[in-house]
Amino acid sequence: MMLQGLLEMMYPQQRAYCKKKGIKMTYIDLEYNPTGNDLVCKFFVEPHGNHSIEDACEDIAAESSIGTWTDVSTMEQGIFERLGPHVFRIDKGSGEVLLAYPSELFEPNNMPQILSSVAGNIFGMKAVDNLRLIDIELPENLVKSFQGPLYGIEGIRKLLDVKNRPLVGTIVKPKLGLGYKKHAEVAYESWVGGCDIVKDDENLTNQAFNPFKERIIETLKMRDQAEEETGEKKIYMPNISAETDEMVRRAHFVKENNGRYIMVDIVTVGFSGLQSIREKNPGLVIHAHRAMHAAFTRNKKQGISMLVLAKLARIIGVDQIHIGTAVGKMEGGRREVTQIRDAIVGDLYGLKTTFPVSSGGLHPGHIPPLVDIMGGDVIIQAGGGVHGHPEGTQKGAVAMRQALDATMQKIPLKEYAKTHAELNLAIQKWGTV
Amino acid sequence: MMLQGLLEMMYPQQRAYCKKKGIKMTYIDLEYNPTGNDLVCKFFVEPHGNHSIEDACEDIAAESSIGTWTDVSTMEQGIFERLGPHVFRIDKGSGEVLLAYPSELFEPNNMPQILSSVAGNIFGMKAVDNLRLIDIELPENLVKSFQGPLYGIEGIRKLLDVKNRPLVGTIVKPKLGLGYKKHAEVAYESWVGGCDIVKDDENLTNQAFNPFKERIIETLKMRDQAEEETGEKKIYMPNISAETDEMVRRAHFVKENNGRYIMVDIVTVGFSGLQSIREKNPGLVIHAHRAMHAAFTRNKKQGISMLVLAKLARIIGVDQIHIGTAVGKMEGGRREVTQIRDAIVGDLYGLKTTFPVSSGGLHPGHIPPLVDIMGGDVIIQAGGGVHGHPEGTQKGAVAMRQALDATMQKIPLKEYAKTHAELNLAIQKWGTV
Repeated sequence: MMLQGLLEMMYPQQRAYCKKKGIKMTYIDLEYNPTGNDLVCKFFVEPHGNHSIEDACEDIAAESSIGTWTDVSTMEQGIFERLGPHVFRIDKGSGEVLLAYPSELFEPNNMPQILSSVAGNIFGMKAVDNLRLIDIELPENLVKSFQGPLYGIEGIRKLLDVKNRPLVGTIVKPKLGLGYKKHAEVAYESWVGGCDIVKDDENLTNQAFNPFKERIIETLKMRDQAEEETGEKKIYMPNISAETDEMVRRAHFVKENNGRYIMVDIVTVGFSGLQSIREKNPGLVIHAHRAMHAAFTRNKKQGISMLVLAKLARIIGVDQIHIGTAVGKMEGGRREVTQIRDAIVGDLYGLKTTFPVSSGGLHPGHIPPLVDIMGGDVIIQAGGGVHGHPEGTQKGAVAMRQALDATMQKIPLKEYAKTHAELNLAIQKWGTV
Repeated sequence: MMLQGLLEMMYPQQRAYCKKKGIKMTYIDLEYNPTGNDLVCKFFVEPHGNHSIEDACEDIAAESSIGTWTDVSTMEQGIFERLGPHVFRIDKGSGEVLLAYPSELFEPNNMPQILSSVAGNIFGMKAVDNLRLIDIELPENLVKSFQGPLYGIEGIRKLLDVKNRPLVGTIVKPKLGLGYKKHAEVAYESWVGGCDIVKDDENLTNQAFNPFKERIIETLKMRDQAEEETGEKKIYMPNISAETDEMVRRAHFVKENNGRYIMVDIVTVGFSGLQSIREKNPGLVIHAHRAMHAAFTRNKKQGISMLVLAKLARIIGVDQIHIGTAVGKMEGGRREVTQIRDAIVGDLYGLKTTFPVSSGGLHPGHIPPLVDIMGGDVIIQAGGGVHGHPEGTQKGAVAMRQALDATMQKIPLKEYAKTHAELNLAIQKWGTV
């Protein structure tokens, strides 16, 4: 108990010490206006016990930058003045606070370092019961130290020669288990039915039942055939997630076999590997799957928001990213999803945009509300919603395109379904919204 | 509302469909005994709304392996039999369940793929309100596909020539801001005072105020001097966290300058980068810092446990890892910390051990209870608890060693402090426990 009392005293002790030594050492400065040199974070803060939010903010500011839990003899006023962050807004009602960090604290082009600072130890501090990094804004010099997307929405639309509608994709199902020949067949049926895109599932990489190289060769062969038959550009997104060098080798293999896309599970791969594949990317479109994100994004009081993850992924340079559906099997409501969409398609120091992807439990019946929410610049992916069609994969893909056609023409699905049998069957099975 | 009803029906629908087609498709098999070929996960499950825990388990099993939210025409009985996971324990009281996954689902030596399966989309499913991966056991073939630690506790003890006591380390403070010359001086004082180890902070990498190369050269020079003066082996752990290739270049630079250790922020670097640095490690000891872990480990109902992270880090091959203090500034209680300790020092198919590190808000007063909790095989790191000593860094390091000496001799700190002035000052400032 004595220790607990001491621990609770420590940060105030640090401040008292600094005062004594003439070192101005409060991080709170509500008069402060962030400059173009600052990295700005918005946190939700729930202080521990009967601590004040101000005390919690001091601790967060210290631990995420230059401080520690006690006064140290090695501290200098100059460091504090040059590198100290500023807590410049505290909203006691919502628990939301804004911190500005001088960009000198950060290493350019090093996302792990940036996160180890502003999203590192602070989540584990006893001084807070809950802490969440809600939003982040990097200053121009840090943003530009990363590569950003190579294609962006514009480049992807050019590549596919599709101008004015959402793209439609599917994921080969079952998630795992098909051999590579069957995998390629399912992909082919999806394409000729009307899908623009076929992607691997997030847990399919290079397993014995479906080896990577054989899958790439066979699936891209079927893609060529589908392109010839439909006269449309078709996309295959193979999941290259692995150890970094292996990932790079896989990307090159895709390129050598005339693939145009790679897919990366950006959370389980991690930020170092993601930066590497972006830097060594041999000209391919990078599709970012977010598997595992909800381990830290879901609880709205703790962890890191999907908004932050999506923004950082764009800055590193993914061309497409899953941001939620608002209507499918995964959590993530309308407001959250549109906020993320706005962030990755908006202006950011001249960076290209990232194409929003909605995926997870979708079927044709979801398309009208989804397009209503997301607008035209969205990639709509349905796995079960294609292969689960009563008449199989190809008809499932047809139904998806019909649903999209109806939506673009503003015709209610039920009406369009009267003259479109595949859509009608899909609606009978899964309904409309 | 109609859609919501449909969504709630979907997984049961899949099962009904499979039943109709003669495909046995429940993943629950309480008679199942895991084999040596299975990867076993323990989850905490809180089903959504009035769903049963059995239904939630079916959904988790499907989404983390071969299934999806609806029946698909491409499903085959053979896939289900070969690759289907088994839910073999359900404890309705605690909400804890055990799942066994056939190892064929996973790619050897690919941690991102393993996590995208068993710790991927499932955290975001609407079917659960909370889900946590509590524990994981990989089968021998998967464990051995990774490298494991190069040194382990035994190798590190040999390297340092310290047999029977915990190691004592510090972190240069303030966290950021010192120039490289001052950084090296602070390190030197720490070593000659008695620290075995000096490490960089998790957010110090290669910033303009303290460039990496200059810091390495200068600090290792001071290390040599400290070794000469003390006759002890001294360790510097530079933080190499960065994009993968840059990280590898930094490791080689450390090696070329006669460093023996590197430090990696394993969570913000990520699993691909961690595997890469382990595979390309030029013979150095790898110290794993866990900054950002609490974003997904802290909430005990959601995310992934620190136990899982520590186990996977050992399998990939880190030699040391932060596992908590039970007594310092970070959350993580005694039971959790000792459980992680047991896991990383225990038998695992002949893999070397990982040295447990306790760091975060520690000072000399913590050493007796910490050694009581952790045993002798622990690395005790104090940053503020060294540099915050009333007489400065060197005396702070002396006090840490004195506290350790007293603890090893089972003398109460207050008694030992009567004849050890540095310890006495530390206790006056921070107390004992």
